[in-house]
Amino acid sequence: MSGIWGNKIKISIFGESHGKAVGIVLDGLKPGIEIDLGYIREQMKRRAPGNTSLSTARKENDEFHILSGCFRGRSTGTPLCAVILNGDVNSEDYEEISNMPRPGHADFTGRVKYKGFNDYRGGGHFSGRLTAPLVFAGSLCRKVLEERGIVIGSHVKSIGRVEDKYSFDAVSTDKNTLEKLSKDIFPVLDKGCGEKMKDSILRARKEGDSLGGVVETMVLNLPAGVGNPFFNSVESTLSQLLFSIPAVKGVEFGEGFNIAAMKGSEANDEYYMSENHEIKTYTNNNGGILGGITNGMPLIFKTAVKPTPSIAKAQRTVNIESGEDAILRIKGRHDPCIVPRAVPVIEAAAVIGILNLM
Amino acid sequence: MSGIWGNKIKISIFGESHGKAVGIVLDGLKPGIEIDLGYIREQMKRRAPGNTSLSTARKENDEFHILSGCFRGRSTGTPLCAVILNGDVNSEDYEEISNMPRPGHADFTGRVKYKGFNDYRGGGHFSGRLTAPLVFAGSLCRKVLEERGIVIGSHVKSIGRVEDKYSFDAVSTDKNTLEKLSKDIFPVLDKGCGEKMKDSILRARKEGDSLGGVVETMVLNLPAGVGNPFFNSVESTLSQLLFSIPAVKGVEFGEGFNIAAMKGSEANDEYYMSENHEIKTYTNNNGGILGGITNGMPLIFKTAVKPTPSIAKAQRTVNIESGEDAILRIKGRHDPCIVPRAVPVIEAAAVIGILNLM
Amino acid sequence: MSGIWGNKIKISIFGESHGKAVGIVLDGLKPGIEIDLGYIREQMKRRAPGNTSLSTARKENDEFHILSGCFRGRSTGTPLCAVILNGDVNSEDYEEISNMPRPGHADFTGRVKYKGFNDYRGGGHFSGRLTAPLVFAGSLCRKVLEERGIVIGSHVKSIGRVEDKYSFDAVSTDKNTLEKLSKDIFPVLDKGCGEKMKDSILRARKEGDSLGGVVETMVLNLPAGVGNPFFNSVESTLSQLLFSIPAVKGVEFGEGFNIAAMKGSEANDEYYMSENHEIKTYTNNNGGILGGITNGMPLIFKTAVKPTPSIAKAQRTVNIESGEDAILRIKGRHDPCIVPRAVPVIEAAAVIGILNLM
Amino acid sequence: MSGIWGNKIKISIFGESHGKAVGIVLDGLKPGIEIDLGYIREQMKRRAPGNTSLSTARKENDEFHILSGCFRGRSTGTPLCAVILNGDVNSEDYEEISNMPRPGHADFTGRVKYKGFNDYRGGGHFSGRLTAPLVFAGSLCRKVLEERGIVIGSHVKSIGRVEDKYSFDAVSTDKNTLEKLSKDIFPVLDKGCGEKMKDSILRARKEGDSLGGVVETMVLNLPAGVGNPFFNSVESTLSQLLFSIPAVKGVEFGEGFNIAAMKGSEANDEYYMSENHEIKTYTNNNGGILGGITNGMPLIFKTAVKPTPSIAKAQRTVNIESGEDAILRIKGRHDPCIVPRAVPVIEAAAVIGILNLM
Repeated sequence: MSGIWGNKIKISIFGESHGKAVGIVLDGLKPGIEIDLGYIREQMKRRAPGNTSLSTARKENDEFHILSGCFRGRSTGTPLCAVILNGDVNSEDYEEISNMPRPGHADFTGRVKYKGFNDYRGGGHFSGRLTAPLVFAGSLCRKVLEERGIVIGSHVKSIGRVEDKYSFDAVSTDKNTLEKLSKDIFPVLDKGCGEKMKDSILRARKEGDSLGGVVETMVLNLPAGVGNPFFNSVESTLSQLLFSIPAVKGVEFGEGFNIAAMKGSEANDEYYMSENHEIKTYTNNNGGILGGITNGMPLIFKTAVKPTPSIAKAQRTVNIESGEDAILRIKGRHDPCIVPRAVPVIEAAAVIGILNLM
Repeated sequence: MSGIWGNKIKISIFGESHGKAVGIVLDGLKPGIEIDLGYIREQMKRRAPGNTSLSTARKENDEFHILSGCFRGRSTGTPLCAVILNGDVNSEDYEEISNMPRPGHADFTGRVKYKGFNDYRGGGHFSGRLTAPLVFAGSLCRKVLEERGIVIGSHVKSIGRVEDKYSFDAVSTDKNTLEKLSKDIFPVLDKGCGEKMKDSILRARKEGDSLGGVVETMVLNLPAGVGNPFFNSVESTLSQLLFSIPAVKGVEFGEGFNIAAMKGSEANDEYYMSENHEIKTYTNNNGGILGGITNGMPLIFKTAVKPTPSIAKAQRTVNIESGEDAILRIKGRHDPCIVPRAVPVIEAAAVIGILNLM
Repeated sequence: MSGIWGNKIKISIFGESHGKAVGIVLDGLKPGIEIDLGYIREQMKRRAPGNTSLSTARKENDEFHILSGCFRGRSTGTPLCAVILNGDVNSEDYEEISNMPRPGHADFTGRVKYKGFNDYRGGGHFSGRLTAPLVFAGSLCRKVLEERGIVIGSHVKSIGRVEDKYSFDAVSTDKNTLEKLSKDIFPVLDKGCGEKMKDSILRARKEGDSLGGVVETMVLNLPAGVGNPFFNSVESTLSQLLFSIPAVKGVEFGEGFNIAAMKGSEANDEYYMSENHEIKTYTNNNGGILGGITNGMPLIFKTAVKPTPSIAKAQRTVNIESGEDAILRIKGRHDPCIVPRAVPVIEAAAVIGILNLM
Repeated sequence: MSGIWGNKIKISIFGESHGKAVGIVLDGLKPGIEIDLGYIREQMKRRAPGNTSLSTARKENDEFHILSGCFRGRSTGTPLCAVILNGDVNSEDYEEISNMPRPGHADFTGRVKYKGFNDYRGGGHFSGRLTAPLVFAGSLCRKVLEERGIVIGSHVKSIGRVEDKYSFDAVSTDKNTLEKLSKDIFPVLDKGCGEKMKDSILRARKEGDSLGGVVETMVLNLPAGVGNPFFNSVESTLSQLLFSIPAVKGVEFGEGFNIAAMKGSEANDEYYMSENHEIKTYTNNNGGILGGITNGMPLIFKTAVKPTPSIAKAQRTVNIESGEDAILRIKGRHDPCIVPRAVPVIEAAAVIGILNLM
C-alpha cells in the first residue's frame, strides 16, 4: 500500500498508464477554495508532453474531470476526486516485450512485487502519467498558498553535465523571478546555459540516448515556525513526497551535500536583526530549515532526476519466461529528457507537503 | 506533532536533553524476538560520546531501561517502551544564553514553533541525545533483519574535504566487510584516507571549529519486491527517516546526484541471468531500487551530515529580548565532528524503515 | 477530513448525491483477487432501492466503473478506484428548502461544518448513496474472506417495536443459514415475525412516517487471535466503521447492553475442550471477542438503525436566512424504512474491518 | 499493533500489569498548557482502587512521573511521556494458573495472538491497570476543553438490574450537575437508586460474584460543527476509543437502541430558534450528533460495561498444556463491580476523542 499520503490534507492516487484512467482524491481541503479551472489547466500544461521539440511528440489527453467535492466553483470541504481518462492507446508494443524488463524501469520490480498481476502496459501504475493527478492536486494547494503570499519557483540547475552558472542564492531571487520562471517551459537563470542544455538534449535524442538533470526549487514568504522535529520535519515531509516522483534519486536542502564539506564556522547561518526588526540570517546554507522547522529564510532544495530510462539504443536484458539473456529495443517515441516536465511535478509535491505542515 | 512514525512497526519518540529522560515506544514488534541486551548495548555504544579523542570528552549515561513489552528476555508483541534517564546536568550555561539563538541550531525555530514554552536547555527535544532511543529501536529491528540474513554496514565516505578513495560499489563489498565496518568506531574503506580524516577533525577542534561529512550505507541480501510505488517507496520511506536525524541535509540513492549527469545508456542498469538463475544487473546506479521497489541488488544510499553547529569560535547572533545584534560564545565541550557517531543512527533509521516495508 | 480509513487496506470514499459521481479507492488489496463482476453486482443490488414495495420507488443507477487496479479480471495490487455516476437528477426541490434544515438529517450540521460551501442537494456527501461505494469495497473484501472459509450473514432483529423472536445464538446458526439470509432481501429468522415487520413498514408509509430497527450480524469461521488490545480491538475497529454508516446510533457485541445486567458467573463464557481438541466456550455472551481479540467462537454484533429522517409529515424547523421558525414538508419519494437496505452496508463495513485486522 | 491512536493528538500506550511500568506518550499537545498536578491526581484518584468498600481492597500505586514534554509546569508542545511504576507484586498466583485461561478474560486470546510470549501475569497488557495512563492523558485533554467552557460528566445509569430512574435528558442537566457528579465516587442522579445499586454490589461480592452496568455520559457546551461524516464521525471516533476500554461491550448515542424502536416523527429532533437566536432542537434523541457532526445540543452517549470477569466462584476452563477440561478458582481480591471506576476512564476516552475532533 502506498498511494495514500498526508495528515491534514490526504491524497489518494490511483491509475495505470494504459488502464481506464488515472486520478486522485484530496481529502481535507478547506471549504470555499476557488476551483480555478484555467489556473489548474495552466499548471497541468507545464507537465504535459508535446510542448516543445525537446519532449516526446506523443500527445496525451490530460483533460481532468472533477467528480466530487466541488460545488458552484468552490471546494465543498468534502473529498475532491479528479480523474483523467486515458485515450485509446495501442498497447501491442508492450505485449511483445512483457517478459523482457526494460533497464531502469520498474518492469521487473513491479512484476516481483505484484506477483505478475500488475498492468505492465506503458509502465502501468509506475508510469510518469501518474504525475498528472499529482500536479492537479498541487495546483489546488498552490492556490491556497498563493493566497497567503507564499510563492514557489524552480529552475533547471543542470542537464547532464551542463550546469546553470547561477543558483537561487547567487542572484537576488525575488517573487517576480519565481513567477517568471513558473511561466517558462524550460526555466533557467542564465539563458546562455539554457541554450547549451537544450543543445545537449537534442544531441542525446539524435544518439538514441537520454539525459537527466537537477532542479533547484525555492519557496518564498514561508513564515518561521512551520514544520516539526523528527519524522514530520520539513525535510522529512518534502523528501518523502519528492522521492515518490518516478526518476528522483537525490534530494538535498540548502547546501545539502556541499554543506558536509564546509567547516562549522562557514556552514552556520549567523543571525542579525533586520531593519524592520525581523530575525534574519546572513547566509542560507541550511535552506531555510533548522531542526526540521522553517526559520523564515527562503526554503531551498535540489532534486536529482535520472535520465529517461526509455532509450532507442539496444540494451541487454533477460527474458523472464525463457530464463535467457536477451537484447531489447524499445519502440515508440520517448522524452530524451524529462527534467523540464518534472519541474511542475516537483513543485506540486512541495506545495502539497508544505500545506500539510501549516 | 511529529514524534510518531510507521505503519507495521510504529515508533514514538520522546524526551529532552536536560529533562528527566529520553525514550521510545515500539508498537508492532512481533512476539518472541530475543531482546539481547549485550547486542543493544554494543549498538548504543557506537553512538555514545567519549569513545575516542575525536568526540567530545563529555560522558553521557546511555543506560536504557525497558519498561514494557519484554518478558523473560523476549518481546511480548505488545508495545515496548525503553527510557534512558538523563543524569543531573548543569543547565546554567543555557540559561545565560536562552535569548541568544545559536546559529545552525534549532534554538530560534523551536522557540517560534513552541511559542517559547519549549525546554531550550541543551537543545531540548532537538538534541542529538534523542538519537539514542532511535539506536535502541534500530538495534531491535536490526536483529530481526539479521535473522533473515540481511546485513547493513556503512563507511565514512568523507569528512570535510577529505574523501575515502573507495566506495561501496568500487570494492567488492560483502557481508564480512560490512560486519567488520560495523565494529569500527571510525569505519572507512581506505585506512590512509581514514587517517587524513581524523587529522582534519583534530585540526578543526584546535581551531575551535567543526566538520561535517558524508556516510555511505549498504544493505545486503534484501530480496527483490520490497517497497512500493509512490509515497511508501523505499526512497520515500528511508529519506523520511534519514532527514529526521538532526544535521542531515542531503540523501541520495545509488549514484544519486551523479546519475543526473549520466546518459540513459550509462545510467540504466542492464540485466543478465546469473549462473544460479537469478536476475542481476551489471551495474547498480539505481542503488538497488527501481520504481520504489528493491530489485535484489545491494541497497546503497549516501547521507550528508552538516558540521556540528556548536563551535568554540565567536559567532554573530541576536538577543531576542533586547532586539539587538549580539556576539555568542558557546561554552562547554562539543564534538568537533559528529559524523562517526551519526553512522549507527543512520543505520538505525534504515533498518527501522526497511522492517516497516517488509 | 474523514473519508479515508484503514491500515492494511485503506479505503478512500468520495462523492455527493447530486454531484457527478460517488466512488471509492481501495489501496492495499493483494494482487490476483478475482474481480467477479456478477458477484459485486449481486451485493450492490441488495442495497439498491426499488427492490420491493417496502423501499422507495425511486430508481438509482448503481452501475459501477472500475477505473484502475484491475487487469484481465484480477486485482493488480495497485489502488483500485470504482465510480458510480449519478444520473441527471432534478435538484430543484432542494433549492427551495436549502435554508430549512430537515430534522434528523445533516443539513444543519453540514452547513456549519463546511461554512455553507457544501453541496446540500439530496444530502450531498451525507447521502445514503455514499454507502453504494462502501458495498462495492465490501464485496471485494468479502470475496477474499470467503476464499478462507469465512462467511458473514445478518437478519433483521427488529423493525420498530416488532422483534424477530429468534436470535443468532438461540437457533443453531450455520454457514447455510447465513448464506440463505444473504440472498434474502428482507432476511429474518422467523418468517411470521418478518411478515409483521413488513406490515408495520407499510403502515408507517401510509401514515407518512418511517421506522428504524436493529440488525444482528454473525461472522463464522474466524480464527482465534484476530484483533488487538486497545485502539484496534475488533470492537473498536468494527464500531468505527459501523458508526460511519449514516443512521447508525448504537453498536453492541455479543450480549452488549444485556451483558451489563448479568452477573459475572452468568456472563463469563466458560471453556471446554471440544471433541476435535479445539478450545470452545459453552456460551457466547462476549460475541466471540475477549480483550479485543477473537476467540474462535462466532463473532456477533447488533447495530441500531434510526428511522429514515425523511418523512412526509409536516415538521417544525427554522429558516436559517430569515432566522424564524418554519414548517417543512419534504417532497419526493423516500424509504419508509431503510433497515433492510442497511443490511448489506453493515456487512460491508464488517468485512472491510475484519480484513484489515487479519 | 494497536497502542497508538489519534491524528491531532496522538496517544501511545504501553505497559503490563506486573511488568516494570505502565505509561503513555501524548504527541501533539499544544505548548503552554498548565500541567496541574493536583488536578491530574484528582482525576486519577477517581479510577484508583481501594476508594470505597465497593471496590477491591487491593491498593495500587498510581503515582505518575512525567518524563518529557513538560517544562516549568507547562506543556512544551513536544511529546509528553508519563509512566506509572508498578510496585513489587506477587505474581506467583498467576504462574500456577498460566495454562488455565480465566473465562471472560483475555488470557486465551492473548496467548493465541502473541504465540505464548505475552506477559500473562495479572492480565499483562490487557489489565485494567492500563486505563490509568488513559486517565492521565484524559486529564490533560479535559483541562484544555474546560478552558473553552466544555464540561463532561457521567452517572451510573444501572448496576446489574438496578437502574437509576433518571437519565440525563429527563432532568434538566446543567454544568453544576455534571461538576458535582464528577466529584462523586459513585455518581448517580437518584440517591435512592444509588443505594440499591451499592447494596446489589455488596450482595454480589458476598456471593463470590460480580456485576456490570451502564454509564451515561454528557458533554455540555460543545459548539456545532465538530466532527466529520464517515470514518471520523463523532460516533466513530468516540466508539473506537470507548471500545478500547477493557470490559466495554456496547455503545449508543442519544437514544441509541431505543431510537430504532421509534417512528421517524418521534425520533427526528425538530428545530426551533431560541430566544438568543441559536438554532436548537426540542428533543435530543440523536444525542447532539447528526451526520457525524455536533449540532450544538448536549452530546450524550451510554456505555455498557460487563461484570468483572474475576470472580471467586469456581469456573469451568481447560488446561491448555494437558488438553483437558479443568476447574479454576481465582484467588486474590477483585472488584465486585468496576463500573464506578470505569466512569473516569470513559470520560477520559471521550475528552481525548473530542479534542482530536476540534
